[in-house]
Amino acid sequence: MENCLDFEKLMEMEGRYRANLINKITGYKTANLIGTRSGSGLENLAVFNSVVHIGANPPYLGFILRPTSVERHTYENIQETGYYTINQITARIHGQAHMTSAKFQREISEFESCGLKPYYVKGFEAPFVADSAIKIGLSFEEEHRIKCNDTRLIIGKVIHLILPEGAVGADGDLDLESLDTVAIGGLDTYYKGTKLGRYAFARPGEDLRKLS
Amino acid sequence: MENCLDFEKLMEMEGRYRANLINKITGYKTANLIGTRSGSGLENLAVFNSVVHIGANPPYLGFILRPTSVERHTYENIQETGYYTINQITARIHGQAHMTSAKFQREISEFESCGLKPYYVKGFEAPFVADSAIKIGLSFEEEHRIKCNDTRLIIGKVIHLILPEGAVGADGDLDLESLDTVAIGGLDTYYKGTKLGRYAFARPGEDLRKLS
Repeated sequence: MENCLDFEKLMEMEGRYRANLINKITGYKTANLIGTRSGSGLENLAVFNSVVHIGANPPYLGFILRPTSVERHTYENIQETGYYTINQITARIHGQAHMTSAKFQREISEFESCGLKPYYVKGFEAPFVADSAIKIGLSFEEEHRIKCNDTRLIIGKVIHLILPEGAVGADGDLDLESLDTVAIGGLDTYYKGTKLGRYAFARPGEDLRKLS
Repeated sequence: MENCLDFEKLMEMEGRYRANLINKITGYKTANLIGTRSGSGLENLAVFNSVVHIGANPPYLGFILRPTSVERHTYENIQETGYYTINQITARIHGQAHMTSAKFQREISEFESCGLKPYYVKGFEAPFVADSAIKIGLSFEEEHRIKCNDTRLIIGKVIHLILPEGAVGADGDLDLESLDTVAIGGLDTYYKGTKLGRYAFARPGEDLRKLS
């Protein structure tokens, strides 16, 4: 049996209950830490579950920014410097990553408070997370103000990509399992992945072909 | 040891290799089927790995639409009718879900070709996927044209949410593992999840508290 909830029933729910539910209905989400530095040099690090692929040629990524105080530091720093990093959360650091969601004051570095080491690339001013397996350096490209609830889509161009040696397969593939990558459910739950299968490009009238 | 690739190195890569790589660097992504129907009644179903949470009060979801022929049918149908569905892919149907990425002609229904049963709710014209564990009915809200590569962010309001009876926990939580939900890596790899932990709201100076 299934339950069907309409808009009125969803809006009658208690706020925290609805937030837990609606944040989980999209399924497993990307799990990343966004690193920035203010114009005056203050480091910031925050967990995001909304990083999304925008394009590969050239490479662009996006993320959704809500109007909360934690995420506002990230936004202000990107506005001030034009640069930021996206760092894949691994199982080993997922506890520290979740801690960055606490409302630290702006002069406090989440790197230090949460036990994560910053890592810098010469000539690029935003801090990466040293212990992240996939580190991405971006330059701000464009933003869109979402009218319905005053959130923003922020888009950046990938100008640095740091990966463990040997991580990239012959056809550009990455093995997310062996990189110890995690997914996020809702706002609070972290998951490891187990591969069901990788499949060839699908074509009408042909059977699905499993690659690995 | 790590490899550091800069923008020039990324742009020198062969196109398919770069697409495989860049599509995987965000980590595990949401795995959903978007169901639509044209003004003349033709059903369409397509796999998307870019569904993103926009807000919970009221509930809004977004997704990124590339300018390909498969996704164009989804876009045209949303423009024609104003309604669409987002359906969570489960392990049981992940092969059929991947098949919907084949370039079927517009008059062909992916429901029929890929062996997925449509499901209708009275008064709502877009088709849901009967075998999906989380079925979401949306009304189109707004769109943003992304300037850097001509993709679009499409945002809809959740007006129907269909879940198995008993799926919602006391605080609005959903157990994605028991719902058989999957994640997508890149464009072609499907994963099951295993929970590492669910954590309480983080506060500065307090230890991380595991809820389950």
